[in-house]
Amino acid sequence: MQPITLLTDFGAQDWFVGTMKGVILGIAPRTTIVDIAHEIPPGDIRAGAFALAASCGYFPKGTIHMAVVDPGVGSSRKAIAVQTADYLFVGPDNGVLSFALAKQKIKSVRRLENEKYFLRPVSRTFHGRDIFAPVAAHLARGVSIHKLGSEQKKVVRLRWPEPRETLEGIEGEIVYVDRFGNAITNIESAWLRSDENIEVLAGRKRLCAMRPFYQSAPSGEAVAVPGSSGFLEIAVNGDSAAEKLRLKTGVRVNVKSVG
Amino acid sequence: MQPITLLTDFGAQDWFVGTMKGVILGIAPRTTIVDIAHEIPPGDIRAGAFALAASCGYFPKGTIHMAVVDPGVGSSRKAIAVQTADYLFVGPDNGVLSFALAKQKIKSVRRLENEKYFLRPVSRTFHGRDIFAPVAAHLARGVSIHKLGSEQKKVVRLRWPEPRETLEGIEGEIVYVDRFGNAITNIESAWLRSDENIEVLAGRKRLCAMRPFYQSAPSGEAVAVPGSSGFLEIAVNGDSAAEKLRLKTGVRVNVKSVG
Amino acid sequence: MQPITLLTDFGAQDWFVGTMKGVILGIAPRTTIVDIAHEIPPGDIRAGAFALAASCGYFPKGTIHMAVVDPGVGSSRKAIAVQTADYLFVGPDNGVLSFALAKQKIKSVRRLENEKYFLRPVSRTFHGRDIFAPVAAHLARGVSIHKLGSEQKKVVRLRWPEPRETLEGIEGEIVYVDRFGNAITNIESAWLRSDENIEVLAGRKRLCAMRPFYQSAPSGEAVAVPGSSGFLEIAVNGDSAAEKLRLKTGVRVNVKSVG
Repeated sequence: MQPITLLTDFGAQDWFVGTMKGVILGIAPRTTIVDIAHEIPPGDIRAGAFALAASCGYFPKGTIHMAVVDPGVGSSRKAIAVQTADYLFVGPDNGVLSFALAKQKIKSVRRLENEKYFLRPVSRTFHGRDIFAPVAAHLARGVSIHKLGSEQKKVVRLRWPEPRETLEGIEGEIVYVDRFGNAITNIESAWLRSDENIEVLAGRKRLCAMRPFYQSAPSGEAVAVPGSSGFLEIAVNGDSAAEKLRLKTGVRVNVKSVG
Repeated sequence: MQPITLLTDFGAQDWFVGTMKGVILGIAPRTTIVDIAHEIPPGDIRAGAFALAASCGYFPKGTIHMAVVDPGVGSSRKAIAVQTADYLFVGPDNGVLSFALAKQKIKSVRRLENEKYFLRPVSRTFHGRDIFAPVAAHLARGVSIHKLGSEQKKVVRLRWPEPRETLEGIEGEIVYVDRFGNAITNIESAWLRSDENIEVLAGRKRLCAMRPFYQSAPSGEAVAVPGSSGFLEIAVNGDSAAEKLRLKTGVRVNVKSVG
Repeated sequence: MQPITLLTDFGAQDWFVGTMKGVILGIAPRTTIVDIAHEIPPGDIRAGAFALAASCGYFPKGTIHMAVVDPGVGSSRKAIAVQTADYLFVGPDNGVLSFALAKQKIKSVRRLENEKYFLRPVSRTFHGRDIFAPVAAHLARGVSIHKLGSEQKKVVRLRWPEPRETLEGIEGEIVYVDRFGNAITNIESAWLRSDENIEVLAGRKRLCAMRPFYQSAPSGEAVAVPGSSGFLEIAVNGDSAAEKLRLKTGVRVNVKSVG
């Protein structure tokens, strides 16, 4: 039976994630359930979308990815399931799935409407438990996505900040800060030749040069590395780049060749 | 094989939860182990009891619920297993099981005395590893609760703060604050008619009106919603009600109809 | 199939741990994966080593323990797998395995060199995902450790601070502070007779006496107990000893008999 992954902003403090797992096991007892992340900042759909896109492709084909960062729970926002060439995705149609779907070939999008696959009664504050978890579990049992509800042509997409070419190089921005304080940019490492002399600046202030790994810089100093998610990432060896260099999501950075 | 759930105040920082899972897998290798919550505030038996009661009923029948918030570990407090119509519960007899048991039909309460089902030697500081985990694992393997020790008639019960009727409505209190800063009251949503005009006050200060879901209020404003645990819950759309309205466990709230 | 345990400093905030699980399930779909701890302070190899040593022995024989606290990822530090009498260990050769290995009979140490068992391409910032997780999964599927790479005779060992005998007793130090604020020393409880009158001092300041369990001391007062990891541990009943007594890793403590 294919695994179900969970990505939410529910945190580890309360019983929310465990409750969803109970619901899944009640419907599909032999499912392997994997936590991707639950400490997405509350309501931060963009951070959830980034985390899902960075991780979903490492799971086996057929995996059911459930992502619930859902500040609009109970409102008129739709709930959807999406079949792609490799995976099934389940979540609110608020953009949280969109960065992941941008890398996937979409085959079908269905609204979650058929209450037969919900927990009853459905609360208006915890669709993770009452709608998304039971739907994911029924999909794991082999229920066809077509039974879930009517077809929908499009999904809500978050704007991805595209970097732009400048006279001197590329201007991008920080799109995610991880637990180590590494600041991930929207500049794909594949665009940069690793044998080039590349510098990263914030405005006119030089931050660091590009090097192959974190400890390429002396302890306490900054370095830009081709990060594991495919993007250029600014780090400080042994410390938090976010704190030391005052980087956060949205901060603009410039990459220029000094070859 | 039925799942074993774990609810503790052990946190994610150390190796305590993982160690208990190792002990369980050594005895019952094919068990599905589910974390309900491990970030219960250290020693907060009441918060643990609330979390267990809010979540346990969403697991399949036969699930073994192990709850260890146990500041008295090693003292004379008893360790028990409880068979109810639907579940088995294992934990210290200090009240942590009591809110969950209040909703269950109790069939048998046994003291954990038979050292055959313990890890040896038993420490006096980590019964989660040495007593509760191995007992839960043996139960999952089909050992009868009657083999664990002598019968006990009652369990230690925490006082549940009952709301009271007032001239104007109902007076209750905050019993739990979740990771979003939503403040859960002891007032059951089922007591309130959702078509009524209902207001929530702290003392004489109006906090908010009751609405069906979080985003019923404008961004940054307060709302009372019928929460997913069955209780009225005070939230702020997109923010922490606990912080913005200075709500914490024990704060009194009044609900009145303004119909 | 034997379980795989994961111990890292990757935290719960991001998708790193979930991604490693996806990789493992893609190679060895039926593996039970157990988290030991992921909130090891970033880059704190010593804390990771202590956590692994305190927990690994509670898992069933044959378990594959993967430990990745790896500030030198991508540099020239080696990656290894170690076969002991009871377990397989996988991780960077930077000392993180060394406290655990000190308790085990080592049978073989192999470098992770055979790229057939890696994810391709291998990043230089996330060997947990690209090297350690796939190697652990292949080991779980039964691949022999001898196929992974060349033999290595020794592993990098962290210095363990040995306590020393003094005129009045034993001088040791704090080696770990847990989530409760309990301060674990390097003084093995087995060295102390539990029927002795034993006092613990920091310098000349008396901290507390030894007692059997946490609540042996009145609420808010300090106590030294034989801890669950086999070491003497300084606690405050109902509070954090680290905060109240200003204890942290490296602080010296003296144990003396006042019998």
